[in-house]
Amino acid sequence: MDDAMNEISCKGFKLSGVYAGLKKNAKKDLGLIVAETPAEAAAVFTRNKVKAAPVLLSMERIQQGTCRAIIANSGNANCCTGHQGMKDAREVTRSLASELGIAESEVLAASTGVIGAPLPIAKIKTAIPGLVQALSPHAYNDFAEAIMTTDTLPKIVFREDRIKGADYRIVGIAKGSGMIAPDMATMLCFICTDADIPHQLLIKLLSASVEKSLNRIVIDGDTSTNDVAFIMASGLSGAKVEDTESIDAFQGQLDHVLKTLAKMLVKDGEGVTKCVDIHVKGASSHPHALAIANTIATSPLVKTALFGEDANWGRLIAAAGRSHVPLEPEKIDIYFDDVQMVKAGLGCGATAEAQATEVLKKSAFAITMNLNIGSGTASVLTCDFSIDYVKINADYRS
Amino acid sequence: MDDAMNEISCKGFKLSGVYAGLKKNAKKDLGLIVAETPAEAAAVFTRNKVKAAPVLLSMERIQQGTCRAIIANSGNANCCTGHQGMKDAREVTRSLASELGIAESEVLAASTGVIGAPLPIAKIKTAIPGLVQALSPHAYNDFAEAIMTTDTLPKIVFREDRIKGADYRIVGIAKGSGMIAPDMATMLCFICTDADIPHQLLIKLLSASVEKSLNRIVIDGDTSTNDVAFIMASGLSGAKVEDTESIDAFQGQLDHVLKTLAKMLVKDGEGVTKCVDIHVKGASSHPHALAIANTIATSPLVKTALFGEDANWGRLIAAAGRSHVPLEPEKIDIYFDDVQMVKAGLGCGATAEAQATEVLKKSAFAITMNLNIGSGTASVLTCDFSIDYVKINADYRS
Repeated sequence: MDDAMNEISCKGFKLSGVYAGLKKNAKKDLGLIVAETPAEAAAVFTRNKVKAAPVLLSMERIQQGTCRAIIANSGNANCCTGHQGMKDAREVTRSLASELGIAESEVLAASTGVIGAPLPIAKIKTAIPGLVQALSPHAYNDFAEAIMTTDTLPKIVFREDRIKGADYRIVGIAKGSGMIAPDMATMLCFICTDADIPHQLLIKLLSASVEKSLNRIVIDGDTSTNDVAFIMASGLSGAKVEDTESIDAFQGQLDHVLKTLAKMLVKDGEGVTKCVDIHVKGASSHPHALAIANTIATSPLVKTALFGEDANWGRLIAAAGRSHVPLEPEKIDIYFDDVQMVKAGLGCGATAEAQATEVLKKSAFAITMNLNIGSGTASVLTCDFSIDYVKINADYRS
Repeated sequence: MDDAMNEISCKGFKLSGVYAGLKKNAKKDLGLIVAETPAEAAAVFTRNKVKAAPVLLSMERIQQGTCRAIIANSGNANCCTGHQGMKDAREVTRSLASELGIAESEVLAASTGVIGAPLPIAKIKTAIPGLVQALSPHAYNDFAEAIMTTDTLPKIVFREDRIKGADYRIVGIAKGSGMIAPDMATMLCFICTDADIPHQLLIKLLSASVEKSLNRIVIDGDTSTNDVAFIMASGLSGAKVEDTESIDAFQGQLDHVLKTLAKMLVKDGEGVTKCVDIHVKGASSHPHALAIANTIATSPLVKTALFGEDANWGRLIAAAGRSHVPLEPEKIDIYFDDVQMVKAGLGCGATAEAQATEVLKKSAFAITMNLNIGSGTASVLTCDFSIDYVKINADYRS
């Protein structure tokens, strides 16, 4: 983290991150965000039918529309932990609320880590006083580290803009790492802003940005048991988001923050060596384009070919063909960046293949498939499927 | 292949397999099955919207209900090869028909290998006289070798039974290898029987058996561009399959052949170290049970945990939870063979985990998930996801 990151702040928020003993490697595993005054709040939760205890608790409490604090731990998902898990999640928030002198119902919670193990509640309660003492307006990096699992880097994005003369800030923090497909790990995302936004509007803004960013790497709409994206708005900058112009401007900045975080998540995915933008166009509709993009983006055969730097376009067409949407194989064009590899369903030959192979050597590039039957388009950001991915996930709990 | 395999035969069929120069490794790559008299014939084809030329050709010709020969090659899929691909497929069958002195329309075709490369038609035509000369009633192994791609073993299953005093035989030959999920490779299957079965009945019998076998490893109903299962019945044994009793008996034998081949395909899947039966019961319906079984069976997180011999039951529940079907997490039981690992949604503790870990060390075992909310059941045969799988598929074309 460079010095610039240590200077960022957002009016009305303090953060901290400490080691509570949940992780085996003695790295930070307990994080806290506190709003000095009640912040407008909104969240998007996992659509998995199995939801972790902190998800269920936060879903209930976010209904109020405001919150004062979010406590997050890594090292344990507190999922499939039954009634005890819910009791434990409540107990953590009660203990924190008491230390902060706020109401328990003003505290939200998030967890990530192994499913099915009891939350080490005593360790967390013991760590809470230190966690509160460590609060600082600049400790974004400490918080970002505390929520990491197999992530190799903390992920923070900062934006500053102005509405009618008032400067405001947005800071986004996320963790992912198993984000090779939506169901593969917990994605947690926390957004703080000092813009002034009522929570009903906040819900709309967050949902719209998530749809364009986290849901375009959360590949088929499936998510883990613990996924959640929170946003809190303190309003302390005085920048009011209320009319069309300010709403559009804020949405643009929020899009930027979430899209940047989404890219960081894919880039730091487990074992990832390539980030690949899958663009599908010329489909009969947007949902059809998205279905094909998702099928390509999740296909193990495509992803292992990307890892092998093999311009195996037959696997791209085969994946499109099993997407259950209309297509005409003999009309399909495929490009690797600007190199046309397939024209009207047929390979473009050895020269094109040699050029495409050069593109595949890059760490980031785009694959564009044009179905040439309509005007539907969609993009999904994916990555390759490497030997290290298998190693990381075969050994995850050991 | 043991001596017993070299002795098997089925009245009215001759086979052969030779090297035509399509594979880089000089192994057999062109196979032929000939019926001495027109055989009743049926087939089940890939549901992929992109279909290889030999699939399209065979779909057209199988309508006649009888056939005399099937020619199959490995090393080239003849898929995404456009009009030339169709011309080439027809030319192969024309050339073979001429050599055999039969009608071109009596010849079916199948191909497996790389997609998008032109079929080396000259090499195949040059090899056809030798292929026909090599025909023998016992050459099942030669044919089975000729259709192998990354398979490590030829796959042949032989059954003999009797209907009203007449002995009949069924021989099944298959290739798979990328069968870790349905879209990952071409599955070809050829069944010869000397039972006497009209082709309309043959279609029903084949479809019913495939649904219980190949479609339970072909995990979500998706299939490659080239998949096909053919059956030919010569009738020369005199065993007539016509009444309920004989139909049931034959169906049972055909089920056995196809289920055994299906297991052999999974066991010899690319990089496979474990064969795992996923049983889901207590679901609200069979389709719901099947949806969960398929989601578990295809989840990379589950499959890498199987490879790592990690009894990570949280990933099983998380996969079930994203299957878009009703479930109550707090009612789920999970067993590894007979070891109960999860009871009412909660882990059964360290002793159970130690016992489950012993089960995971086996090369074949069952995982049973009971949702305890209904009577729907389904089973899917899957395998682990290994480092070798990634290596094989990253390097497939090189």
